[in-house]
Amino acid sequence: MVQAYILIQTEVGHASEVAGRVRDIPGVDEAHDVTGPYDVIVQARADDVDALGSLVVARIQRLDGIARTLTCPIVNI
Amino acid sequence: MVQAYILIQTEVGHASEVAGRVRDIPGVDEAHDVTGPYDVIVQARADDVDALGSLVVARIQRLDGIARTLTCPIVNI
Amino acid sequence: MVQAYILIQTEVGHASEVAGRVRDIPGVDEAHDVTGPYDVIVQARADDVDALGSLVVARIQRLDGIARTLTCPIVNI
Amino acid sequence: MVQAYILIQTEVGHASEVAGRVRDIPGVDEAHDVTGPYDVIVQARADDVDALGSLVVARIQRLDGIARTLTCPIVNI
Amino acid sequence: MVQAYILIQTEVGHASEVAGRVRDIPGVDEAHDVTGPYDVIVQARADDVDALGSLVVARIQRLDGIARTLTCPIVNI
Amino acid sequence: MVQAYILIQTEVGHASEVAGRVRDIPGVDEAHDVTGPYDVIVQARADDVDALGSLVVARIQRLDGIARTLTCPIVNI
Amino acid sequence: MVQAYILIQTEVGHASEVAGRVRDIPGVDEAHDVTGPYDVIVQARADDVDALGSLVVARIQRLDGIARTLTCPIVNI
Amino acid sequence: MVQAYILIQTEVGHASEVAGRVRDIPGVDEAHDVTGPYDVIVQARADDVDALGSLVVARIQRLDGIARTLTCPIVNI
Repeated sequence: MVQAYILIQTEVGHASEVAGRVRDIPGVDEAHDVTGPYDVIVQARADDVDALGSLVVARIQRLDGIARTLTCPIVNI
Repeated sequence: MVQAYILIQTEVGHASEVAGRVRDIPGVDEAHDVTGPYDVIVQARADDVDALGSLVVARIQRLDGIARTLTCPIVNI
Repeated sequence: MVQAYILIQTEVGHASEVAGRVRDIPGVDEAHDVTGPYDVIVQARADDVDALGSLVVARIQRLDGIARTLTCPIVNI
Repeated sequence: MVQAYILIQTEVGHASEVAGRVRDIPGVDEAHDVTGPYDVIVQARADDVDALGSLVVARIQRLDGIARTLTCPIVNI
Repeated sequence: MVQAYILIQTEVGHASEVAGRVRDIPGVDEAHDVTGPYDVIVQARADDVDALGSLVVARIQRLDGIARTLTCPIVNI
Repeated sequence: MVQAYILIQTEVGHASEVAGRVRDIPGVDEAHDVTGPYDVIVQARADDVDALGSLVVARIQRLDGIARTLTCPIVNI
Repeated sequence: MVQAYILIQTEVGHASEVAGRVRDIPGVDEAHDVTGPYDVIVQARADDVDALGSLVVARIQRLDGIARTLTCPIVNI
Repeated sequence: MVQAYILIQTEVGHASEVAGRVRDIPGVDEAHDVTGPYDVIVQARADDVDALGSLVVARIQRLDGIARTLTCPIVNI
């Protein structure tokens, strides 16, 4: 299994609705509005890196109001 | 109370009108056009971090011509 | 109370030891090594924004191997 | 006269002492610690752009603990 | 001949179709979806820097779903 | 008089037409297409910082195909 | 197996020696000097994301002259 | 022949001496101190991309006080 933080920039004015919708996606553990260069920070999990990529592109990026996502897989080193 | 600087990138050609409109929002102390990677820099205040987030998302980001905002809360350390 | 994600860039070669040490600091809930533009992502909490600033500057930034930190307070909007 | 915001990144652990020392420099009106990608935000004034450049390079950048400065002159457009 | 890596940011939700279409352009050797601040990384070749610029602007940037490209020519130093 | 470099990011596919049109604006000395994070680099001059701001906002940013501009005034220090 | 591009920023003056040394590390397929915001771009492979993280932190970041690395895992989506 | 702009970030306090020394390097046409995210902007020329890379790494980056350089080759498209 792969876990990741996903740092999201929303289109202006959409931060709070994005966080709410992301929380409903299977595989997403947490999603919070934040201030700073990112607007929403998400914690998610998937079977492997490819499934994580699909979760981001096919589910999260399909939501209205998403401008950019930055996926940061957790590594155990 | 929380004070913050809000660094704004406007859509091209909208810098001066954005500064004027931001100045009229309650809680905003100053707003100036600047050159460099940001187009307008704002000083604002709110009761707490949540109210500051609302001021940015519900009031400033609702203005036409805003591309990105970056909120930098002042801390006393 | 204020919660925040803290995105850390470490000096090269120090990522894993930084995550371990950050985890021991009171107020830190989680700390993970990640790949991408940041090296360690931390979840922490403090009484208010000022106490959060102190946690970052006086405790986290004092650790060896930290190059930059970016604090993203969670907002409820 | 030219006014400017100067966005400062400090070396880790030096944010609060930098803000205090910058405040003592002639031409500096305000200097605050902030969270986010910058650590200290300064408001300053000088006779012209060249004098502003000198203020930044010869006075502010000479202080211990400064990693990068980003000068954003205010424009009236 | 000049070789280059081209780092592409796609509009949200378009990463996989962009990689497939870029692969069909003459001069492109490889194109892969990636996670992180870029969405697709391409390896390409052209006769000289000007032809490389034309390949990027006239062919790659014409595809639907491209938000930004960053061309990094390979140098032998 | 103030001189400046203006670093321009164009919308995808518009780099070459932007450079040509910027060259026709009074106050612009040079404008070239470049590869890298910026698409066009311009050298320009104006009477003072405010006039430079107006040149950028009222003339350059009005052109079709401009996504972001970054004005870097030359300083003599 | 996971493949990745690793975008490296070197300390000034070290680009060419870094590329040569990275090429000798097991798991590295290619390493080239480039111009632009990165100095060396590497293609590498590892058994999984954790092994990729170890390759970067324990082998590549240990080399002299590395300032920052940015790992971009290839995803098949 | 290849021409390029080279955007330089200097170590704090070194901007003006860097511009003066860069101007003396064969192949450099102009070098100016600027305000903003870069400290010195250089215009240079070389026989080809490889020679340009060598000019930057072997000559400019060898100077004291250089933190990062970003080479932007001019393209005729």
